Amino acid sequence: MSTRTLRVPAPVNAHSHAFHRILRGRTHQGVDGGAGNFWTWREQMYAAAAGLTPAAYQQLATAVFAEMVVNGYSAVGEFHYLHHDANGLPYAGEEAHGMELALARAAQAAGIRLVLLDTCYLQGGLDSAGGVLELNQTQRRFSDGDVSGWLARHQALGAALADLDAGQGLLSLGAAIHSVRAVSPVELGQIAAGLDPALPLHVHLSEQPVENASCQAAYGLSPTQLLQRTGLLGPRLSAVHATHLTAEDIAALGAAGAGIVICPTTEADLGDGIGPARELADAGAVLCLGSDQHAVLDPYLEQRGLEYGERLRSGERGRFAPAEISAAAREGGLRSLGLKDNADHLLVRTGSARTIGSRTAQLPLTATAADIAEVHINGTLVASDGIHTTLGDPADLYTAFFTEHPEFS
Amino acid sequence: MSTRTLRVPAPVNAHSHAFHRILRGRTHQGVDGGAGNFWTWREQMYAAAAGLTPAAYQQLATAVFAEMVVNGYSAVGEFHYLHHDANGLPYAGEEAHGMELALARAAQAAGIRLVLLDTCYLQGGLDSAGGVLELNQTQRRFSDGDVSGWLARHQALGAALADLDAGQGLLSLGAAIHSVRAVSPVELGQIAAGLDPALPLHVHLSEQPVENASCQAAYGLSPTQLLQRTGLLGPRLSAVHATHLTAEDIAALGAAGAGIVICPTTEADLGDGIGPARELADAGAVLCLGSDQHAVLDPYLEQRGLEYGERLRSGERGRFAPAEISAAAREGGLRSLGLKDNADHLLVRTGSARTIGSRTAQLPLTATAADIAEVHINGTLVASDGIHTTLGDPADLYTAFFTEHPEFS
Repeated sequence: MSTRTLRVPAPVNAHSHAFHRILRGRTHQGVDGGAGNFWTWREQMYAAAAGLTPAAYQQLATAVFAEMVVNGYSAVGEFHYLHHDANGLPYAGEEAHGMELALARAAQAAGIRLVLLDTCYLQGGLDSAGGVLELNQTQRRFSDGDVSGWLARHQALGAALADLDAGQGLLSLGAAIHSVRAVSPVELGQIAAGLDPALPLHVHLSEQPVENASCQAAYGLSPTQLLQRTGLLGPRLSAVHATHLTAEDIAALGAAGAGIVICPTTEADLGDGIGPARELADAGAVLCLGSDQHAVLDPYLEQRGLEYGERLRSGERGRFAPAEISAAAREGGLRSLGLKDNADHLLVRTGSARTIGSRTAQLPLTATAADIAEVHINGTLVASDGIHTTLGDPADLYTAFFTEHPEFS
Repeated sequence: MSTRTLRVPAPVNAHSHAFHRILRGRTHQGVDGGAGNFWTWREQMYAAAAGLTPAAYQQLATAVFAEMVVNGYSAVGEFHYLHHDANGLPYAGEEAHGMELALARAAQAAGIRLVLLDTCYLQGGLDSAGGVLELNQTQRRFSDGDVSGWLARHQALGAALADLDAGQGLLSLGAAIHSVRAVSPVELGQIAAGLDPALPLHVHLSEQPVENASCQAAYGLSPTQLLQRTGLLGPRLSAVHATHLTAEDIAALGAAGAGIVICPTTEADLGDGIGPARELADAGAVLCLGSDQHAVLDPYLEQRGLEYGERLRSGERGRFAPAEISAAAREGGLRSLGLKDNADHLLVRTGSARTIGSRTAQLPLTATAADIAEVHINGTLVASDGIHTTLGDPADLYTAFFTEHPEFS
């Protein structure tokens, strides 16, 4: 193979739930041979969440972030709601922010830029008639009780992260609202009024038709309309998925200049559907990409997933020019996470059996993570040919995690 | 990384156009920034076809088949219509079957089992009013003039292939009808009556809505109905794509026990759409998988593409159990190509960063070709870790091809 490489800006992973990696390759077959749907998958995800401690999560997240880095991701927006202990009680004293700092230390070990999208999650959901559900046992780990409780913890977390970062520029704080299912309209308004407007703010939006139906039943509004009505639409907001939208929703998100985090491999894996990415971009929204549940960690598969989804729904090719796809992977992600461009980059092999012959601009349609020769983050070489410079092969980190924590095996 | 591997049956690639590999990474951006649709892509594909000679095609196909082998494919159904020279004249004398034997020699070099689906292609297509189009300059390379011309060449080719194979069991002859666009109803009936019923027979079917519309306009029938009416539906027939079908089409293909070759990465790349794979299987059809234009060559991406397509169109997960996906990749392909099971197998790394933690049955949803440690075909180790045992790195074969044939660069 030719040793020729091309320097390209390194992708940003704008939506991650690190612990979902535990579920990879485990939810595709139910006891009856089937594998259910998004909602039955969510039960399995809750079961995985229930057992995590700060120490276990740091070990797991170190492996996940290392897997991200060797596959070319330079930054990650970690949408984090697993705040409290198994009884729903806050980590306190020396253990304060235990789960959050576990993620931060994992990012430092892996050398990836982390934006911790610390998430507000206050109610258990909406039923089909629009009624509010109580938090279940697992969800009690997610809740700070009310918006002021979340804001207080969030503010303290910002200081703790800055201390830990110590000027290295690897850790920063963002915010998230889990969804209109998990936060009430009054609380959404409180967040709009109370949250530092300089912070990036993410929200799961209309991933499943059921969310739209229950939001309509509860409030007579689509989730997008509810965000608009409560003052949350704007350029600092990123809507994750945005799969099932009305024309009015698209226009509102576009007019607001919102970010849209498309997660192609997850949206296929969970049967979410294909969202109106082209229409959103045309309306003025700014696209970015996320790996979400990490069914795979390969920024190239996400990039072509964006375009392939468009082709499947439209019957046309070239819905996004290759440069638009690359921009979603990098510039869109930086903007969505409030990060400056610091020249993080990859060297990609243009002479592999996969890539040879491709026009270089079209590599997002032909390369895979296996073609990445080098990953440079914050001016440092962090990985070469699938091996992390300081942590080695991420597979060994997973082996240690599963061995030391057989409850997740 | 753990050296643990799992032995699994090796996938079969039931639909290939080897020369389409030239187009990889070259058709995603038009002069206007867009990339057109299936039909504009076809113009680029014809341009690539126009320049191929037997010598050049042997060199190219050797690289393509080597890339298939290192990525785990043990057998290939080559849907081949590039029969004659650039003027449409048959290769004769010492050069008889020049293009076909180029493919056969390439398969021998790569050690892949080849079923040469020698294709009947007699007219240039159907216009939107159902009128028959003349063959264009490139298409003249495809045509044998009439069915008896095709059958005569086809029969002679069988003998030539058997001679070349010399009992090694690597080469066999199959047949194909390009599509209802390229062969008239009368000719379809002649093929049904005249072709050896023991041979596998493939046909492109309803890949694009335009084919359905022009077939309706010409004959008042869907393509499936036309195949049924002309006596071609049956278990030896494999319909490639079968994307845009009516309920009656699905029932007819199922009742016939036909093979259905789904080509997930190509159907996404070309904007074909997502076909009714689950309904076809439920009706009695037998699914298999093909890489078609080789936008990528990775049997795992095709396998999960089959299931992900279903999830996207249905909103449900587990539309195919993992064992059904694996069966489409192997048993379905063997049946479709008329091949016996000879224990071709892979050793797949179950402890890579990608695969560790997966249940082994669910590897089709988590592995990629990069996880393949060894490929065994016909009792021989033919590739290890992306390197072909006798041919080396397929990238070097492509480098030689593009260097020696700058007209394809």
